[in-house]
Amino acid sequence: MENLVPQAKNPHRILLGPGPSMVDPRVLKVLSEQPIGHLDPELLKVMNEIQILLRLVFETKNELTLAVPGTGSAAMETAIVNSIQPNDPVLIGVVGYFGNRMAEMAKIHGADVTILQKPWGEIILPAEVAAALKKKPARIVGIVQAETSTGVLQPTKEIADIVHQQEGILIVDSVTSLGGVPVQVDKNEIDICYSCSQKCLGCPSGLSPISFGPRAVHIVESRAKPVASWYLDIQRLMKYWGPEHIYHHTASSTLVYALHESLRIIQEQGLSERITWHFQNAKILWKGLEEIGLSLFVPEQYRLPSLTTVRIPQNVDDASIRKQLLEKYNIEISGGLGELKGMIWRIGLMGYSSRMENIQLLLSAFKELLKR
Amino acid sequence: MENLVPQAKNPHRILLGPGPSMVDPRVLKVLSEQPIGHLDPELLKVMNEIQILLRLVFETKNELTLAVPGTGSAAMETAIVNSIQPNDPVLIGVVGYFGNRMAEMAKIHGADVTILQKPWGEIILPAEVAAALKKKPARIVGIVQAETSTGVLQPTKEIADIVHQQEGILIVDSVTSLGGVPVQVDKNEIDICYSCSQKCLGCPSGLSPISFGPRAVHIVESRAKPVASWYLDIQRLMKYWGPEHIYHHTASSTLVYALHESLRIIQEQGLSERITWHFQNAKILWKGLEEIGLSLFVPEQYRLPSLTTVRIPQNVDDASIRKQLLEKYNIEISGGLGELKGMIWRIGLMGYSSRMENIQLLLSAFKELLKR
Repeated sequence: MENLVPQAKNPHRILLGPGPSMVDPRVLKVLSEQPIGHLDPELLKVMNEIQILLRLVFETKNELTLAVPGTGSAAMETAIVNSIQPNDPVLIGVVGYFGNRMAEMAKIHGADVTILQKPWGEIILPAEVAAALKKKPARIVGIVQAETSTGVLQPTKEIADIVHQQEGILIVDSVTSLGGVPVQVDKNEIDICYSCSQKCLGCPSGLSPISFGPRAVHIVESRAKPVASWYLDIQRLMKYWGPEHIYHHTASSTLVYALHESLRIIQEQGLSERITWHFQNAKILWKGLEEIGLSLFVPEQYRLPSLTTVRIPQNVDDASIRKQLLEKYNIEISGGLGELKGMIWRIGLMGYSSRMENIQLLLSAFKELLKR
Repeated sequence: MENLVPQAKNPHRILLGPGPSMVDPRVLKVLSEQPIGHLDPELLKVMNEIQILLRLVFETKNELTLAVPGTGSAAMETAIVNSIQPNDPVLIGVVGYFGNRMAEMAKIHGADVTILQKPWGEIILPAEVAAALKKKPARIVGIVQAETSTGVLQPTKEIADIVHQQEGILIVDSVTSLGGVPVQVDKNEIDICYSCSQKCLGCPSGLSPISFGPRAVHIVESRAKPVASWYLDIQRLMKYWGPEHIYHHTASSTLVYALHESLRIIQEQGLSERITWHFQNAKILWKGLEEIGLSLFVPEQYRLPSLTTVRIPQNVDDASIRKQLLEKYNIEISGGLGELKGMIWRIGLMGYSSRMENIQLLLSAFKELLKR
């Protein structure tokens, strides 16, 4: 007989990293209810309302708007695998870790990938996309609106215009923006936009919003080769979410109810009020960080309100400070990813984590720990 | 301004369908706690304990044992996409809906699929596999141990022996058996075995156990072509779950803690006691159903204890009875899938749903509704 595994301890962190964020108690309450069946009429009603609420948050009329049964990276792969066919010329803008991930997925699915590479922390300029497409046309272009690895907010509208002039489609990653930073799928003419639940939407991870516009739907419907994924096949997913309600997977009603409640909170607050609130709190954090002598990694013009990146001062040990934040104050922030490892910290103020008391606590803990 | 979406109603069904099942209140309690980070040392410890507990439930020593971040069909695709390369000869035994799903996925991933088809509700015999492999050798063979669409329990050991004699590997679907019916991965020499969380394990859906044995690991590691999925790439998943803990996706700590608690409950009960309990309750249900004149679809020899299928009597309206069960008594059972639609009902007694009060209630409701 093996030893009995003891009950797991939940340390109830103050989550100020790049996600997951903390969850509104209203959402926690919903999570603790019994599951119901994946074809229960009540669940199908809830899913239908989620589609309505997601359209509101994405600011789109796109019929094909739903939540993929996986995390943000599953939604990224859903965008890629449904739009790309083997040997398709694809252009991916890479200025951080998640641009790289998108390029990697496109390669896995057989695309002929061109990478528009710039230093991490910069943005991709429309003229650079135009030049890259002139050199080698692409059917599909992918960019990251909110690059979680650098804290940069990438403008997307002008890039969309350029891509559309060449009859391509634009995929936009809004994993760290949706619900806290304007995404505006229709206004910005984004063809495929995906996100996650555990950041600005304020929900646990596991269900990831995605929306396909008319150009993207056309590309999916006119594919010569079948989609190289069963689980992430958007047409199968839509047949389950849509009025036909054809069984695909066993939806986690637990997560479905949680997403519904977190989207309801956003609707009650109003999306633009929520975006303002995220921005106001970010500005307070930025000011506070600068006041204690820390230097922000991204110029204000392209700074993401939901995720702030700050340079680790010289002679300060990255891991030791984060360990002390975690062990002494129960605060999670995150280190740099990839080539920014050891160079920056990443501080998220998203969803229910974006609160004055958290900003105050973090700043005062930093003051304490960075005293020299 | 759109109308505010009202709070969603959770009808708290008595779940006696083919899954999801009801969840132990201990698991519900864990679900209602705040999420924590996907790289939090506490979460990584919980994930490590889940691997230990999953090995106990699968009855395996396989190092590569973890939970896929999706539902049972994501685990099915994980088994397929990691083992199969384009044009690989693959044999799938199809005696129900989920065998078909496995064959469909194998085709999507480019396999040269042979289907060993028998009428729904039967089992695949070892000699039939031997004959099929003689006619056309296959590198990978897939069968469903617990066919959720028919209620049949498929023996697997002799088939594994035949497959191994030809140096192939055997994939076994244990979605409707793990935790309630013996699976015994090592004893039965199953090479890849996958399941789900929302049936006999008594947890919400969204995380799906999978285990790869040495032969399967060898096939994965010696692939010439990369795995045609990023999200379900078992080597990437293992690098996150294993001691390296390399970031892959943002694990839903909510679901991770829930799975941990549900597996702890199984360890406390003892796996063999739990299997006996599932079987005893199934026998009571079978006897009760026969006493009210219903005829069971599967001969007792191959009858699945976790999911019972019963013939819908002539002149009884399938949909009407299920609607009344749902609306009058708040009970969910399920109709037939695919070619058994309208012919059978499917009644699950799995996890926390497998309780005397539920059996008694269902039988008495049936008596009431089937009165002629």
